[in-house]
Amino acid sequence: MEVKEVLHMSRGDGENSYVKTSTYTQMIALFTKPVIASAVNSLFQEPFFPCKLLNVADLGCSSGPSTFTFMSTVIESVKSNCRGLGSTPPEIQFYLNDLPGNDFNTLFKSLSDLHRNLDGLSFFVMGAPGSFHERIFPQNCLHLVHSSYSVHWLSQVPRLTTEEGLPMNKGKIYISKTSPPEVKEAYLAKFEVDFTNFLRCRSEEMVTGARLVLVLHGRRNADPASKESCYIWELLAEAISSMVSEGLVEEEKLDTLNVPYYTASQEEVQHIVQQEASFTVEHVETFALDVGGISSEKEDPWTRGRKQAKHTRSFTGSVVQHHLGEEVMDKLYGEKLAHLIGKDLSKGERQGISIVLMLRKRD
Amino acid sequence: MEVKEVLHMSRGDGENSYVKTSTYTQMIALFTKPVIASAVNSLFQEPFFPCKLLNVADLGCSSGPSTFTFMSTVIESVKSNCRGLGSTPPEIQFYLNDLPGNDFNTLFKSLSDLHRNLDGLSFFVMGAPGSFHERIFPQNCLHLVHSSYSVHWLSQVPRLTTEEGLPMNKGKIYISKTSPPEVKEAYLAKFEVDFTNFLRCRSEEMVTGARLVLVLHGRRNADPASKESCYIWELLAEAISSMVSEGLVEEEKLDTLNVPYYTASQEEVQHIVQQEASFTVEHVETFALDVGGISSEKEDPWTRGRKQAKHTRSFTGSVVQHHLGEEVMDKLYGEKLAHLIGKDLSKGERQGISIVLMLRKRD
Repeated sequence: MEVKEVLHMSRGDGENSYVKTSTYTQMIALFTKPVIASAVNSLFQEPFFPCKLLNVADLGCSSGPSTFTFMSTVIESVKSNCRGLGSTPPEIQFYLNDLPGNDFNTLFKSLSDLHRNLDGLSFFVMGAPGSFHERIFPQNCLHLVHSSYSVHWLSQVPRLTTEEGLPMNKGKIYISKTSPPEVKEAYLAKFEVDFTNFLRCRSEEMVTGARLVLVLHGRRNADPASKESCYIWELLAEAISSMVSEGLVEEEKLDTLNVPYYTASQEEVQHIVQQEASFTVEHVETFALDVGGISSEKEDPWTRGRKQAKHTRSFTGSVVQHHLGEEVMDKLYGEKLAHLIGKDLSKGERQGISIVLMLRKRD
Repeated sequence: MEVKEVLHMSRGDGENSYVKTSTYTQMIALFTKPVIASAVNSLFQEPFFPCKLLNVADLGCSSGPSTFTFMSTVIESVKSNCRGLGSTPPEIQFYLNDLPGNDFNTLFKSLSDLHRNLDGLSFFVMGAPGSFHERIFPQNCLHLVHSSYSVHWLSQVPRLTTEEGLPMNKGKIYISKTSPPEVKEAYLAKFEVDFTNFLRCRSEEMVTGARLVLVLHGRRNADPASKESCYIWELLAEAISSMVSEGLVEEEKLDTLNVPYYTASQEEVQHIVQQEASFTVEHVETFALDVGGISSEKEDPWTRGRKQAKHTRSFTGSVVQHHLGEEVMDKLYGEKLAHLIGKDLSKGERQGISIVLMLRKRD
């Protein structure tokens, strides 16, 4: 599977779209506004300031709406800094990046509601199709780069077969308690290569003193097979497994499915940043948020199970469907996964762990 | 009608898409390659050279494939100039612009076939959604701007009602032999305002010495109601009129439809460039090409009529459908217009008139 040709969040703006179901990442976007604002403030202390143009990129923007929260935070912070300094605000060029299979049409249509001139600040929006595992932008041009809930996606599934070519991670689709140590090692090694490469590409594209703000799905537990790390993949494997026992999916299909995703710890992420050496860490923290979001109290676990299964489909569906075929998707997510999440939620709320990093491009 | 919210070339890459039917504009793109190459050569004589990054924009790019012809011409010309000078080629950032309703998804998917690094030249592709009747890019950043078969689209339909609010251009949808002089004046006045504004926006976005290459649908005849100028709109009005007489379209619908389009003469275009004064004219010519294209000899007029009606639908369909409704579209284009074009072609080949301009942004 060529991840960059397969992976995309659910398209359009209908009931099952990523736009409509991604309440968790929208909550993350609201929660990380202060870090974005702080990154913008820092730019005003850099020697490249004052400048006439700020180039800002959002990597893995999907079709909104989190990217609009990011954009408006940047715009507000730039305006507020310029008011404080009594200076004319620079123009802002926003580059919104995602893979070429992303639904840019929906993104651009939502954008037309935004006004391009807000109180004397002009901004311009560009779509930047491409994989952030490669170069996307010209050299030495970006002042602020942001990526939320994207960099945990790997460029490829790590090689998870034995020397004899047999599947190494049978019955599972990600690291699991029962996975052999080689699976954990292969996933971490792939993340190290990909994240190092990500930092190297960005460092070529960013000016000295530019800021890189990353929010990743992560874990607090040292064990990559801990529940907080594997939760959704564990339940999805169980859902597929249940369809295998009903004869709806071939066992071999499950055994050969592994997802291009890695849930890192803060230590792993920091270690790679230090090794790669293009950036200094200005801020790092790990935080937990209830996955159910604000409205979770009011609904029963089974309703929430269906909602979360729908959301899970909006970000995992493209990869799973590529491997298992379209015909099993409604049952897999709408019945099996919804039921498993509901059952789990009836035991208590679940938290998602996120790592947020603010990095400065070195001199 | 808000033109920027309605107008788009037919989406997707199916049989009726703009991608598949736009053989005429693809022929124009091949025909104007030497002018593009000449514009690129000129850039190498400007004081901003050598530079590390060339910013190049294609305005009204649709979903390809003409824009790929333009891009490859630019890439080849930059490489050839740098080989001649023994210098390292700059990186190129291509901004592909069209209205937000354009099918950028299809455009970006086709792009993934292009390699981003060709013999040591790196290029990056951005989608730039927006109307070229407004600012789309930051100040003072573009080195080369191109627009082929787009700038004849007006930002709005001119006001074509009498003081009493009655339609001024009954039975027609564009300037026609039978239109009152006020119709011609209103169209020319709107084109003057729009094209002046277009030049002003571009001049803010372009660096001194940058080149602007424009290819417009035009006319040689001084009379804006001449056949070469109005041909397709005249036949389309006749097709709609025939549906009015069959009771399939209300007469009032035809009387109030006017298209946001103007076929200028070379003199009109040059006059506006001189008045606006941001650019000097380096090259201007008017040329004629057989509309049927290369394969026209082999097919009978009726087959070609159906093909040309399909192509006409791909660029006029969004505006006409917005006014008349979807239900009449298949009959209007597939039967009525196809028949009228076929009948006309049986009398002889038809030529399309184009104006090509190369302008230099003044010091």
